[in-house]
Amino acid sequence: KATYRVCTLPGDGIGPEIMAEGKKVLAAVGEKANVDFVCEDHLIGGAAIDACGSPLPDETLNAAKASDAVLLASVGGPKWDSTDPNAPRPEQGLLGIRKGLGLYTNLRPVKIYDALAGASTLRPEVIKGVDLVIVRELIGGLYFGRRERFYDEPGAGANGGRGQRAYDTMEYREYEVERIARKAFEAARKRRNKVTSVDKRNVLETSRMWREVVHRVHDEEFPEVELEDLLVDNTAMQLINRPADFDVIVTENMFGDILSDEAAQITGSLGMLASASLGDGVSLFEPSAGSAPDIAGKGIANPLAQILSAGMMLTYAFDMTEEAGWVESAVERVLDDGWRTRDIADDATPADHVLGCAAMGDKVVEYL
Amino acid sequence: KATYRVCTLPGDGIGPEIMAEGKKVLAAVGEKANVDFVCEDHLIGGAAIDACGSPLPDETLNAAKASDAVLLASVGGPKWDSTDPNAPRPEQGLLGIRKGLGLYTNLRPVKIYDALAGASTLRPEVIKGVDLVIVRELIGGLYFGRRERFYDEPGAGANGGRGQRAYDTMEYREYEVERIARKAFEAARKRRNKVTSVDKRNVLETSRMWREVVHRVHDEEFPEVELEDLLVDNTAMQLINRPADFDVIVTENMFGDILSDEAAQITGSLGMLASASLGDGVSLFEPSAGSAPDIAGKGIANPLAQILSAGMMLTYAFDMTEEAGWVESAVERVLDDGWRTRDIADDATPADHVLGCAAMGDKVVEYL
Ligand SMILES: CC(C)[C@H](C(=O)O)[C@@H](O)C(=O)O
Ligand SMILES: CC(C)[C@H](C(=O)O)[C@@H](O)C(=O)O
Repeated sequence: KATYRVCTLPGDGIGPEIMAEGKKVLAAVGEKANVDFVCEDHLIGGAAIDACGSPLPDETLNAAKASDAVLLASVGGPKWDSTDPNAPRPEQGLLGIRKGLGLYTNLRPVKIYDALAGASTLRPEVIKGVDLVIVRELIGGLYFGRRERFYDEPGAGANGGRGQRAYDTMEYREYEVERIARKAFEAARKRRNKVTSVDKRNVLETSRMWREVVHRVHDEEFPEVELEDLLVDNTAMQLINRPADFDVIVTENMFGDILSDEAAQITGSLGMLASASLGDGVSLFEPSAGSAPDIAGKGIANPLAQILSAGMMLTYAFDMTEEAGWVESAVERVLDDGWRTRDIADDATPADHVLGCAAMGDKVVEYL
Repeated sequence: KATYRVCTLPGDGIGPEIMAEGKKVLAAVGEKANVDFVCEDHLIGGAAIDACGSPLPDETLNAAKASDAVLLASVGGPKWDSTDPNAPRPEQGLLGIRKGLGLYTNLRPVKIYDALAGASTLRPEVIKGVDLVIVRELIGGLYFGRRERFYDEPGAGANGGRGQRAYDTMEYREYEVERIARKAFEAARKRRNKVTSVDKRNVLETSRMWREVVHRVHDEEFPEVELEDLLVDNTAMQLINRPADFDVIVTENMFGDILSDEAAQITGSLGMLASASLGDGVSLFEPSAGSAPDIAGKGIANPLAQILSAGMMLTYAFDMTEEAGWVESAVERVLDDGWRTRDIADDATPADHVLGCAAMGDKVVEYL
């Protein structure tokens, strides 16, 4: 009987609640597939700061490295918002584990569930058929470049040198662009064979290098995949104008952060979106939405993104595509039968079809 | 009789066509208000590259500096796309004149015209009442920071030092944030008294400084204006989710580039959106949309954004708010009476109400 060790990181806010449902579904899949998923909780984010002063204790990173896959829920919350610039921040745990595991590829699929199309603020005919994936570079660029804040010497620089000065650095090396481009083209091959590479080539040097390298990788290794370039500002428009036209969108870290959230919002059901972060070793899976501190502890959070993240883990970490299909199809049928959590319910949902977090997890297990 | 010297920069693509209509309307306003607008064309962008090898000839920058205001149409086009990294690019003309005139404030109003609400891909009830302005910092950040590309020394750095490396720098000084924050609060005072300051404080040092400085300016000088902070990724979502909730959005250059285009697309009628770029001297006014090379020379471009840019010039450069009101109201009445250019026409528009570029300019003059 195969055994997989999953490092589970419940984190903050609704994290522990939705994680419980993710594990529930995983256990049910394990039983059906005759596989053992051994989950072990570790601390990250605000919870880790509270327990031991660091958003990513060494113990957690080591456990993650020693595991077969990492399943994360969410980190952060107002409790750890501090005006002290040196105070540890929950997000550092997330950034730290991405870097620590070398997770350079972030896959964020954005897909409209027919049953939930009404939740979108876009017109139904515009979002019909939307099925794209954002391939975001995750451990480079402005997120991990050199940054500093200091005071100008009196008299030096502009404005007589008064006041503070700060900078961040958007830096990329050729091999970092190469490897993420490859992931995008590989993803496109398994989908509709089209890649949109997003940059700001008319301004940034990193973007000019980005475009050259993406085209070289394309011409040398994936000439049969359709490739188009789009400026980041134009992409922000086209995602609203013609979202269904996109297949794979590949871009650098900060642009990917902004565009993937924009694309997620287009569906109107953020609580449904899962993501995978991949490198050359252990991978990490997490919902796209945040820790929702305002509803934490109330038992009303939507666990479906967490459950679908576990589904992505089956595909990408354990090569269990068939079993991943069970999870996706169970979620789809649950929705088709009208079961909802509060965030995706609408006026047409009968009160007895609005489920709490745990009841939704149970429902998915029932449909498995 | 007052005389104002306007430096007009038709630029590329549809630029010359829409500029002609902007001038037409300006002349009509001048006649009615007994003011002389003396327009003088100068070269910028691709047209300037073709004529003298530089996207911003000294002559143009000097003429702009000596004028009372600059009215720009649009720059760029595939003709000047080059794989040679040292070839001059039309956009450098735009960036150069912004920097050369010290235009640190870019105002992009985004407003739904009732008559055009159907053009949006968002549901009518979501965009109803949208009336916001993006205040974008325009001459700092990644756009003007140090950038470079080079080869790592063999053996040095990551990956054994193979390949290229590139970086751009996002840099801000305290006074740059202060002055743009002030512009945002001043704008809010004349509107609905609310400012949303957008940053990525959980990652960037420039954003942490940005947030501190914006709050200091707020507390010291504008305590009566409502101020909220929003992360850039969340803003990209909320613009789609609840666009009508925003009043003034203030942000740094690159975030502003992306978010203002996203916000513009929400209206579905990009050809309607004007912008003002202000500094401490001469100001510049231009449509938000681009040079649309695909329809250039066909006489079908929408000149309304250019005409409304001239309207913003009346307000911001010449303090002629009453006359600016004439222009806005003429445009609104033209739309209310069903007159359209091709880009904003729909199935319900009778063929004889679809106007070309020049005819639309004439129509606005008629309604003045
Ligand atoms: C929490 C934050 C640092 C993070 C990011 O910006 O990458 C989040 O927004 C995300 O997209 O996963
Ligand atoms: C053409 C380009 C350099 C410019 C910018 O990015 O500022 C444009 O997109 C704009 O927003 O005015």
